Order: sequence, then structure tokens, then C-alpha cells
Amino acid sequence: MDVVVYDTTLRDGMQGEGMSLSVEEKVRVARILDELGVPMIEAGFPTSNPKELELFERLRDAGLRADVCAFGMTRRRGVSAEEDAALRVLAESWTPVSTIVGKTWGLHLEKVVKVDREENLRMIAESVAFLVASGKRVIYDAEHFFDGFFDDSGYAIACLTAALEAGAENLTMCDTNGATLPHQVASAVRAVREALPGAALGIHTHNDAECAVANSLAAIAEGAVMVQGTMNGYGERCGNANLISIIPNLQLKMGKQCLPSLEGLTEASHLVAEMLNLQPNANQAYVGKNAFAHKGGMHVAGVNADPSTFEHIDPAVVGNSREVLVSELAGKGTVIAHAGGDLDDVTASRVVERVKELEHRGFQFEAADGSFELLIKRETGDYQPLFTLESWRVIAEKRADGRVETEATIKVWVGNQRFVRTAEGNGPVHALDQALRAAIGERFPHLRDIKLVNFKVRILDEWKATGATTRVLLDASDGESTWGAIGVHENVIEASWDALVDSLEAGMLRSQASATTSS
Amino acid sequence: MDVVVYDTTLRDGMQGEGMSLSVEEKVRVARILDELGVPMIEAGFPTSNPKELELFERLRDAGLRADVCAFGMTRRRGVSAEEDAALRVLAESWTPVSTIVGKTWGLHLEKVVKVDREENLRMIAESVAFLVASGKRVIYDAEHFFDGFFDDSGYAIACLTAALEAGAENLTMCDTNGATLPHQVASAVRAVREALPGAALGIHTHNDAECAVANSLAAIAEGAVMVQGTMNGYGERCGNANLISIIPNLQLKMGKQCLPSLEGLTEASHLVAEMLNLQPNANQAYVGKNAFAHKGGMHVAGVNADPSTFEHIDPAVVGNSREVLVSELAGKGTVIAHAGGDLDDVTASRVVERVKELEHRGFQFEAADGSFELLIKRETGDYQPLFTLESWRVIAEKRADGRVETEATIKVWVGNQRFVRTAEGNGPVHALDQALRAAIGERFPHLRDIKLVNFKVRILDEWKATGATTRVLLDASDGESTWGAIGVHENVIEASWDALVDSLEAGMLRSQASATTSS
Repeated sequence: MDVVVYDTTLRDGMQGEGMSLSVEEKVRVARILDELGVPMIEAGFPTSNPKELELFERLRDAGLRADVCAFGMTRRRGVSAEEDAALRVLAESWTPVSTIVGKTWGLHLEKVVKVDREENLRMIAESVAFLVASGKRVIYDAEHFFDGFFDDSGYAIACLTAALEAGAENLTMCDTNGATLPHQVASAVRAVREALPGAALGIHTHNDAECAVANSLAAIAEGAVMVQGTMNGYGERCGNANLISIIPNLQLKMGKQCLPSLEGLTEASHLVAEMLNLQPNANQAYVGKNAFAHKGGMHVAGVNADPSTFEHIDPAVVGNSREVLVSELAGKGTVIAHAGGDLDDVTASRVVERVKELEHRGFQFEAADGSFELLIKRETGDYQPLFTLESWRVIAEKRADGRVETEATIKVWVGNQRFVRTAEGNGPVHALDQALRAAIGERFPHLRDIKLVNFKVRILDEWKATGATTRVLLDASDGESTWGAIGVHENVIEASWDALVDSLEAGMLRSQASATTSS
Repeated sequence: MDVVVYDTTLRDGMQGEGMSLSVEEKVRVARILDELGVPMIEAGFPTSNPKELELFERLRDAGLRADVCAFGMTRRRGVSAEEDAALRVLAESWTPVSTIVGKTWGLHLEKVVKVDREENLRMIAESVAFLVASGKRVIYDAEHFFDGFFDDSGYAIACLTAALEAGAENLTMCDTNGATLPHQVASAVRAVREALPGAALGIHTHNDAECAVANSLAAIAEGAVMVQGTMNGYGERCGNANLISIIPNLQLKMGKQCLPSLEGLTEASHLVAEMLNLQPNANQAYVGKNAFAHKGGMHVAGVNADPSTFEHIDPAVVGNSREVLVSELAGKGTVIAHAGGDLDDVTASRVVERVKELEHRGFQFEAADGSFELLIKRETGDYQPLFTLESWRVIAEKRADGRVETEATIKVWVGNQRFVRTAEGNGPVHALDQALRAAIGERFPHLRDIKLVNFKVRILDEWKATGATTRVLLDASDGESTWGAIGVHENVIEASWDALVDSLEAGMLRSQASATTSS
């Protein structure tokens, strides 16, 4: 491989606000990275904290091909490396690699750690030498390297030299505060290469100027051979460098081999997001749901003629796929593509007309694929409703004692059978959902698997304020796939009801389709 | 200014999935941009579509300092520029600037538009010349410029030359598919500069390789003098170049003056997000809530000793702040400033605590200045409610004949007088608003002047779906000023009620204040 990918999701990524993973989940993240072929995985500091200890034990036994790296810092001042408890933990850890971070920038030496410059050089050299003597491969992370370099390049390079001469196998330059721009990274790395010919260099950047990816590429272009970053760019403040973007940029656009294959990239990105209970970013480069989305008629026609007209790479190479958005701008070709190709021309035209008419009224099918599937079914005559509505009623009340209560009553027919059900909820939609499931849940047991996972309300024509049209988007999931449904009405409750019914009917439709496919 | 900032949020930004703004909101976005000092605002294509026509009329009368740009494309093949209906719309529009996009890349000429290379050059030249002759300043957007340049640099430059010689004031190179990396942008722009010395160049990039910001900077470093992008990087697929990052990078790190001040950047970024009903990205560079967040211990001590130890810029310069989980409003100084200066220190601290507590529960006062004013009044003991609520009840019904009906009943006290009123509405909030005005409108005639002009609902903790917390933002206006109010509750109707009451009370408060001021 031309560039060593070094993942620090489990250490630096976890510094992000709200990041939290159990030991089990961290092991799963390590397995995902290993599966991708990431060769170095930084797991954290193997303290005496039982949770961290357990993690390192689990990782030792996980049979990973990747090298697990334990992270620490240079010895404290006034203590020998051998006497430094934290360094000893690293030395005694089973991991083949120790990564240690040390200071580079005079400002930090003076104002934060209060260590003089010579002592700092000794701290670096002795700490690296101690770990090397303990049989470790050592990566040296030069903290605040670029700030230090532009303040005093001689001293910054002296810090790297201390680590190099003590036996570090890689010197990684860190843009810890994320202050640096690509042209500055390039000029600093170039200077280091000239000062330390033959030394293996690495790059570790943060996204505070929205340049972490470009900064990493700039360093690699100037000869760095290791890139440190995190999955999806997770990390404190604005995040770390996003390996999910860096890897395909290096491999597909710069000809630098990083991983044996990129096909697992999209799935890995989404899995890690899910594990962190974060919504995958739909607009994320390479792996986002919208990264290869096409809207306009011309785009769709162009992509059909030659994908490279409108796609910078083949989405399949990174495990992603082309998405054709349905919208006002879309033509018949888009609708047919969306329906899976089995729509005749006349029906497709009718669907297009219907979509236009509904979008004019405020519908928007881009994020409502479930409702769109139902719309096609209705136009082809294949639509079978789960039930027939007679009426619903919602009563919401703020009582004199301050309590807010909501109940919904629905009257529906399934075949010849009439159901009248009342349910409470913590809002009108919740109450209607409960009442509907009470009515038809026994008849359609698969409904129990369908959960509403997302709910968005938007007022159209907002200047009309509370007299305006309301658009409700509901996402539902059966644990395997997720789909969107939409409702539009001047009354928010009716709009929600429509979206609710679509989301359940689309879920039933999908389960039938997958039952047919698997049989 | 060294670099002209050209915003295309209202045109290219709206290509993003799910983006939608009313005419009113588009005008507000333009005002926000104008307030920031953005000199060029692209508003879209002034078609005969009534909504677009209305937008351009509203913008004409908005008194903006910025140049409004109308967007279109080169003439169709086989038609003269004068005969091309769309070009005539641009020529006849009131806007001083026309921006037109044209082809640069042989692949597109062959496979998408099926126009030969010579005809394409004529299309560019004649279209630009026609608009110039119509009195327009013309910006020429060279679509797929970089793909075209690396395919056939001579032809790509010939396309720019055609536009330049026809009188375009700026030639903007577009990375339409987002395929290009910074070093490639730099080399292409350098070649163009050498080929067309003295021509004013611009850059327009997309974020498909997560390099849109760095690509823009690379072009500016090579001599481009205009940067096109969108607020927060909104746009199709992975988004456009994010002006909110580009501007401070240029101004604070590259010494290129763009705007008179950056202090409005954070607020502008958040306001536009709110208008699109999108959650501001907490990890966004420069303006995110976490962009200057510090984890305890060493960071905080370092920042106290010298902020530059851990902060790449002073957050105040871009209108952001250091506080971790606290909003912009939750600084004591900000609170005092907001209260008009007449708040003692102890009360200000209490307000800060209360804001923190409410924000933890999902409130957000940035867009709810009316509720914030009431909050201060409540803490200082100056708050006088318009009425006391006994109870309210909403009944919404979809009847067997398909009609949807909503009525609200409220029971309130004003002084010793009890009012019970029932009103219908086309939704629960509308009905409550009508009932409340029926009850207290005579007592407070100024309420008649207060109109609800905007209404947004967002579900927090979206993964809890219909069982989640709901945040309602209501904007109200009395024709002179506009203010926002907020309500948060698991029940959407109660959240709306709270926002409704705040919006009316804040309006009364303002009218009293202005009565006092003018007396």
C-alpha cells in the first residue's frame, strides 16, 4: 500500500460531543475497520480503568489483521520514562504499536505545560527510546505541529528529530487546533522532508477550517505515508479528518493505494453512524444517500447516455448507488427508473402528471419513497388499502389542573368488519397511531414490526401562518429497511393521518414484495 | 474588497434534496445576506412562473445594497440569442447582472446537448454579447470547466475566451460534478491566468470529494477574484462550496478582504438553517455550537492562560463563542445587552441559568426574541400576563363525509372576568388563536394589529418519532416589527399554544415599549 490508513475513531473520534460506545460496540467498530482492510487501529489508552482494560483484552483476542495501537503521551517532566506510570502501561500492553503525543509549540511549553524547550526534547527522546527498548513500534504524534512550525520551524523539526533518532517508526504532524490551510500544510511537510530525508511521515488534521480532508491530501502529495483520521470525521469541535472521504480521494483520484477494495466504504460508514446512534449524513461525500442523486431531467438523460457526464466516480466502487430523485423537474424516464423499469409508457406519463399535480399542492416525493410506491400502485390499479376509514376524532385538552391529555377515536372497516377504537397518546399523531394499531393490528401482525422513526412537520406558504398548508414527513422502519411517507393538508392532524396511513401501507407493501422475492 | 462573494443559496442551494423556501423566506434570506455585506446575490431564473416573478419583484423593491443576479443559460442551438425566450427574460429583467452558464466539456457536447464545438463557442459568445448589449453586466459560468480542462485544455480556454471577448465581466470556472482536487484546481486556474492575463476569474465548486472549500481557496490563491457558494454549503448531492467557511478562511487566514465584518456570520448561518427547517450543524467550522467547545482540564486552563493555545481564531470575530453547551444568548454580557443594559448582575446570572435549563429541554432562543424578552421580564418580576388560562380543548374530526373540522374552546380570566369562547379554524392552532382573540381581543385592541406570519414545527429527538418532543417557532408581526416566539412540549398543540401566547404577549410588550418611547 502507498499510504498507511491509521484510524483513531475509538480514541480521538470519541472526544466528540455526545460520543459514547460500549466495549462491545468498540470491538464491533474495530471489526468493521479490520474488514475494510484498515491496517492500524488506535484503540485508546489501556489504563487500569476496567472498561478500557476489558477493551484491550477483547481486542487482543479478536483475531484482527490490523495492528492495534495504544495511545499515550511523553513522560511527565522530572520523572524518568521508566518511572512514568502511564508509559509503563503502554510498555506492558500487548499491542505491537505505541503511539505517543508530545509538544512541539513554544506557546504550549510556556503557557500550558510549563516545560523548557530542552527538557521537552528529552521528554520526547527518552519516552520513544523507552518504548522502543520495550519492544514496541512507536508512532510519534507531534501535537500542534503546524502552529509550532510557523512559530519556530527549527524547534519544531528538532522535536521530530528527537523522536526519529530515538527510534520512532513514523513522525506524524498534527494540526491539533485545525488552524492550518492546505498550502501551509504542503509547505511545512516539504520543509520537513528536506530536513529529514528518508523519515516516514504521517498527517493528523482537524476540520476547524473545513479543510481537514484537503490538508491530509496535501501532506500525502508532499510525501507523507500515513494518514490518521476517523470514520465520518467524528471528533471534537468540528471533527477529525474524515477517512471515508480521504481514502477514495487518494485511491481513485491520486493513484495512492490505501485499501484492497473500497466497496465496503458506504456500509462501514453507515454502520459506525448507527452504532453511535447518529443519523448517517445524507449529503456526505462518496457514501451519503444523496451523493449520487440526480434531480433534473437533463441529468437523468445524461447519466443514461454516459454516467461520467454527471458522476465523478462510479458509485458502486465505494458501495454506494445512484439515486434518482422524484421532483417537479423530473421526467418520465425518472419515474420509470424509480419504478424498477416495469411501467409502461402511458402509465408512466399518468404518474408524472399526478406527481406534478401533487407537488403543485405541496407534496414532495424525494423523501417519501413509500408514498411514491403507493402512488404508482394507485395509478396501475394494484393498490389495495389496508382498511376503509369511516371517521376519526382527536380531542386534546389542557385541563384546569394544567395536565395536557390527548385521545383519538377512529372508526374503520376491514372488509365487512367495523372497528371503533379509542386510544390516548402524548400528542394527536401518537394517539391516532395507537388507535389505528388497536383497530387493525391483529389483522395485520406485521404492523407490529413497523416503527415510526422520524417525524417532520413543515408549514408551506408560511406567511399564512396558522392558516397555511402543512406538510408532514414520516419515516418508518421495519428494522431492515426505512421508507418515507408524506401527507399535505391545511390541518396538521389530517396531514399527519395521511402520512401515518401511507407509512403503514407502504411497509405492508414492502413486506409482501420481499416475501414474494424470497419465495 | 479583494474577493467578491457571490451567493447562490437561492438558486443552486435550492437544488439540495428537500430544500424549499417561500417567496417571503427567500426575500428574508436575501436580506440576511445583504446585512452581512455579501455584494452579489443570485436569486434564480425570473421565469413567467408567478412565484419566481413575485420573488424578483419583491427583490427589486427590497432596497438591497447587493447586486441581484438573474441566472440563465446560453441560447439554445439553432436560435439566435435575440430569439431565445429564456435569454430575453434575462435581458428584460430589472437585475443589473445576468449570470449565464454554458458548456465547456466535449463529453457533454457530444452526449448530452449534442452540439458541435464551434456552435457551442458561438452560443457562448452570442449569448453574452446579447445580454451586454441589453445593458447587463454578465458573469459567465463555465460548467464542468475542470473536467473539460483536463480533457482538452485548449477548448476549455477557448470557451472562456469566447465569453471574455463578448464582454463578460467575470469568467467563473465551475467544478460542476465536484470531481476535482485542490492541486488540480490550482494548476488549471494557473494555466487560465497565463492564457487570459487580466481576465477576472471566479470559482464555483461542489463538495463531492469533501474539498469544495479548499478548492475555492486554491483558486483564489491562484488569482481568482470571485467565489461562488452557498450558506452552510447547501446544494445538491454533497452540497456547494460553503461560504460560511470560505469567507473567514480568506479573510482571517489568507489576508483577502471579503466582507466589512464577520461578526454576523454565526447568526446568519443559523437563521438560514432555521428558515430551511434544518438543524444547524453543531460541528460546523467557525459557526457550529461545538466549533469552540473545550473539554475540561488542560484545554480550559490553556484557554484561560492564552486563548490562542487551543483556539485557531477568536470565536467572537465570527460571532461565535467559547461556551460549550450554551447558546450565544446565554452569556451574561449578551443577556444584559439584550435587556437594554438595565439588568443587574445577579438577575443576569439568573436569566443565564434559566436559558441554559430551557435550552437543555429543547428551547432555542436565537430565533425567538419575543419569548426571550418575556423570559427576562419574568425573571425581573416585570411580567404581567394578558390573561390567566383555566383550560383549553381542541376537537379535530374527520367526519364520515370526508370533511375535516376543528374547533377550540378556551376558558380564560382577565382580571375577575371569565371568558369562555369557542372558535373554528382550519387546524388546531388556528382555532385556538381565533378563540383566544375572541376572548380577549376587545380588552386588548392592539392584538388586532398582530398577525402570525410564520409557523415552524420541528421534532426534537426525531428517533422517538411521534412520541418525541416538539418545538414550535412562531413569528408574529404588527406591520412595523417582527418577533419570534417558541414553545416546547411533547404535545404539538400545547407547544403551539405556548408559542401563540408568547407571540401575542411579546407583541403587547413591544407596543407598550414603543408607546413609552414615543411619549
